Amino acid sequence: MGERLILSIDAMGGDKAPEVVIDGMALFAKDMKHVDFLVHGDEAVLRDLLAQHGVLKGRYEIVHTQSVILNDMKASQALRRGKGSSMWNAVEAVKSGAAAASVSAGNTGALMAISMLLLRKMDGVKRPGMTALWPTVTGRAVILDVGANLEATGRQLLKFAIMGEAFARAALEIERPRIGILNVGSEDMKGHEEVRRAHELLQNCGLDIDYRGFVEGDDISAGAVDVVVTDGFTGNIAIKAGEGVAHMAGTFIRDALTATPWAKFGALLAASGLKRMKSRMDPARVNGGVLLGLNGVSVKSHGGTSAEGFATACRLAEHLVQSQYDDEIHANLAKIESGTLAQTQSQQS
Amino acid sequence: MGERLILSIDAMGGDKAPEVVIDGMALFAKDMKHVDFLVHGDEAVLRDLLAQHGVLKGRYEIVHTQSVILNDMKASQALRRGKGSSMWNAVEAVKSGAAAASVSAGNTGALMAISMLLLRKMDGVKRPGMTALWPTVTGRAVILDVGANLEATGRQLLKFAIMGEAFARAALEIERPRIGILNVGSEDMKGHEEVRRAHELLQNCGLDIDYRGFVEGDDISAGAVDVVVTDGFTGNIAIKAGEGVAHMAGTFIRDALTATPWAKFGALLAASGLKRMKSRMDPARVNGGVLLGLNGVSVKSHGGTSAEGFATACRLAEHLVQSQYDDEIHANLAKIESGTLAQTQSQQS
Repeated sequence: MGERLILSIDAMGGDKAPEVVIDGMALFAKDMKHVDFLVHGDEAVLRDLLAQHGVLKGRYEIVHTQSVILNDMKASQALRRGKGSSMWNAVEAVKSGAAAASVSAGNTGALMAISMLLLRKMDGVKRPGMTALWPTVTGRAVILDVGANLEATGRQLLKFAIMGEAFARAALEIERPRIGILNVGSEDMKGHEEVRRAHELLQNCGLDIDYRGFVEGDDISAGAVDVVVTDGFTGNIAIKAGEGVAHMAGTFIRDALTATPWAKFGALLAASGLKRMKSRMDPARVNGGVLLGLNGVSVKSHGGTSAEGFATACRLAEHLVQSQYDDEIHANLAKIESGTLAQTQSQQS
Repeated sequence: MGERLILSIDAMGGDKAPEVVIDGMALFAKDMKHVDFLVHGDEAVLRDLLAQHGVLKGRYEIVHTQSVILNDMKASQALRRGKGSSMWNAVEAVKSGAAAASVSAGNTGALMAISMLLLRKMDGVKRPGMTALWPTVTGRAVILDVGANLEATGRQLLKFAIMGEAFARAALEIERPRIGILNVGSEDMKGHEEVRRAHELLQNCGLDIDYRGFVEGDDISAGAVDVVVTDGFTGNIAIKAGEGVAHMAGTFIRDALTATPWAKFGALLAASGLKRMKSRMDPARVNGGVLLGLNGVSVKSHGGTSAEGFATACRLAEHLVQSQYDDEIHANLAKIESGTLAQTQSQQS
């Protein structure tokens, strides 16, 4: 038997915590017999919840705290007053080496700030980038940055590409992820200065990565690339705009299939296909974001996710820990800091 | 009987021109007995096509040209070599007063450039803004800019809000359109400098408009506001990301309802509801964009649209001509140039 892997869970973060968090953890634990848990939160509540899941027996330790980061707390407040909270402790366990990675469904801004403070930035990374997974016709894609930074220079976009590439290999289990930069057209001269600069850098960086050039908004769902690189402002708006349309489509489908008794009966007949459709569109399937560029894995689960969704976020943490994604990022960042890229740049300037 | 209204149609622009253009024009003409047409393109081809539609009899004049703006032509080429083309002539007819508005499904960049050159910018407008319509749970929303400019200052966003508001009243027939600025969060301090500046300007502009503050990407489809204000880079990516998700959802639904013979039978039983769903998601329902801020109406139809879609674009042109939207824009722009806003600005700077 291999080594045990320990995940650090913020049991108190998220809209339906701690119930959904513990249910999701248990779902994940079923398939992942090599994983144990540090569970951060109110012991009195957690003890009973955890005891309900036979699969967790002997596989967890509760780290008691009554302090919780609230959803409306600003990142700056969380940094000042968050010490000792379930979220803080969950991330601190990664820093101390007590756990391999943490998962929290709590306040996004607070989690980014606390993770950045405790885990620190990797060498060569000025701006960590937040990832999101996006459902596509053929599978899933990674998009980053989705909100850690509002703007990004060409060079930062290059680093997002490097980080996203290694992340996609680990998270999506794709050997050679295809990378694209999000833009308003696919021709070289399209877009603002920073995306054109990033395009040039990626074309000439000499890294062994599969850069496919510019992609447009509709290319994301079409699965044109596996890694979509953009600034945090655009990325955040793109994923939320997409979520909004998916939600609307779901509403329209439900309306259509409940409009008449015949329609309801028809939906029953089509149940197997509809179930598959639901799972392909299910937000739980794409749950889990990571602030890339830190020394340690801190996974953010959607606050309103289901138990299945929280399990997906745990799976993401496990995949990242098992992979060499951080070594790969290190290596590629080092290459662009020193070698090929510096040459390319001096030739061009 | 009221006055006749004349629409100028670029019959040769679009992926399925001229057939779909003429079919769409005829569809529109059925409901709009007060409209006549100038039809620009190859007379030999158009004569037969037009003659097939009884409803058009005696209501059109062909303006012959064999020159066409191709889809891959750059805007700069279109300006240099486009004179005399069907697109150019269609817009020129608006400038000369021969027609009240033009509609083209041709090359977007070329149409924007030609429209800007021939129709000229309104007083007080430095950057015209391109609109798109977006389907929502409750109806439709207007989003601008979707690509005429890559960036926008706070003051330009304010002007987009003013133009979009009058446009929404005309296009969507909403008495008092609600306006929002697209951002990564709804709190005052969220987002980059330009959106925060626009937010402040809109809150203090003293105009009689219904400004609702910041909206996020998922608020668009939810119908939170009627006018979504953003820069052209973000707007273009948001609409295309949304289109991509809608297209993916359509693919998944088709797969689900054809997966088994039972599913196909079920889809038949649910046909009426599904038909309604299809029409709510139909891109034809939201076809038609306008470059706002020019002295004249030049409507851009999607290049790949159906006849129904082209009819929607014609309807949009008709609505705009019948409304006072340009007077309203003029009046509000004049107010911010002189009165209240200047005061607000001087107090704050």
